[in-house]
Amino acid sequence: MPKHAHGLHLDPAVRTDAKRRLASVRGHVEGILRMLEEDSVYCVDVLKQLKAVEGALGRVGDLVLKSHLAHHVVSAAARGDEARMVDELMELLKYR
Amino acid sequence: MPKHAHGLHLDPAVRTDAKRRLASVRGHVEGILRMLEEDSVYCVDVLKQLKAVEGALGRVGDLVLKSHLAHHVVSAAARGDEARMVDELMELLKYR
Amino acid sequence: MPKHAHGLHLDPAVRTDAKRRLASVRGHVEGILRMLEEDSVYCVDVLKQLKAVEGALGRVGDLVLKSHLAHHVVSAAARGDEARMVDELMELLKYR
Amino acid sequence: MPKHAHGLHLDPAVRTDAKRRLASVRGHVEGILRMLEEDSVYCVDVLKQLKAVEGALGRVGDLVLKSHLAHHVVSAAARGDEARMVDELMELLKYR
Repeated sequence: MPKHAHGLHLDPAVRTDAKRRLASVRGHVEGILRMLEEDSVYCVDVLKQLKAVEGALGRVGDLVLKSHLAHHVVSAAARGDEARMVDELMELLKYR
Repeated sequence: MPKHAHGLHLDPAVRTDAKRRLASVRGHVEGILRMLEEDSVYCVDVLKQLKAVEGALGRVGDLVLKSHLAHHVVSAAARGDEARMVDELMELLKYR
Repeated sequence: MPKHAHGLHLDPAVRTDAKRRLASVRGHVEGILRMLEEDSVYCVDVLKQLKAVEGALGRVGDLVLKSHLAHHVVSAAARGDEARMVDELMELLKYR
Repeated sequence: MPKHAHGLHLDPAVRTDAKRRLASVRGHVEGILRMLEEDSVYCVDVLKQLKAVEGALGRVGDLVLKSHLAHHVVSAAARGDEARMVDELMELLKYR
């Protein structure tokens, strides 16, 4: 049995957008790695960059979450997997 | 005049630890990029991975923040740059 | 036309639980107000109490959110108000 | 021995401002309690109000935190209680 027998997949357009944004996140992380090569780097400059990356990751997450809500959660009752959909979401949103 | 005339630098041991952790974050981001190559990837699996990366970034931030507090903020009064230290921190912690 | 023509209401059992918890939050806020009467109150003790109240409010929110997902969001496609349900949720979860 | 032998107290002006804001938070919580008396209350309206209260509490916290940084943390090295100040802050900012 496959891992996700439910057959719910991330929307292709959102997947493409998420990849593009995540490639940019990777570039940003590499930029911070280069900053950290410098002896004279200042803590607050690193913290600002880390916060910017967290913001960018959050925007990728919002994109995927919105797509999941719109494509999968709103139709859960019709499909009959409401409990699973709700529990998964609550687990994800905890401490968010 | 250099960008940071104050001469405050991130502690070398913390810098090394942050680099190591951030290299692992980059690897994790690359893993998510590979997940996103799959047509059948499930939204919630992507969201869980994004959340894990945010957690790892937060731990790098905590490391740098603790070092900044311990090495620079607690001695600001003695150095005479309290206002700057406090304003920078409050800006960083906003919406955190 | 009523404010909420959709006729979606918070589940009564959840409403009762939320009231009970929120009455306790009010008591906690009153406790902090009393702390703040003391000349010798220490900042960090106030911050800890504020954080505890935020945690308690977050738990009320989780309760109401879970009920909303389970009773209203999962059936949105069947009802035909998906766009509204998704937009409302995304607005609420922003910066959460 | 008193609980806080260190003798660090919340600045009186900040204490007054925090009390005023917290009294308003209490009023807001009471408003949500009244909302919850209504059979027809809508989940999302409750969630919006809870989020507004969390925002207001966060602003009280920012006020107290800024005062603590400015009055106590920046002078910790001079006073000799750096470790305590840093550990307390990191504990507070965790999961913030």
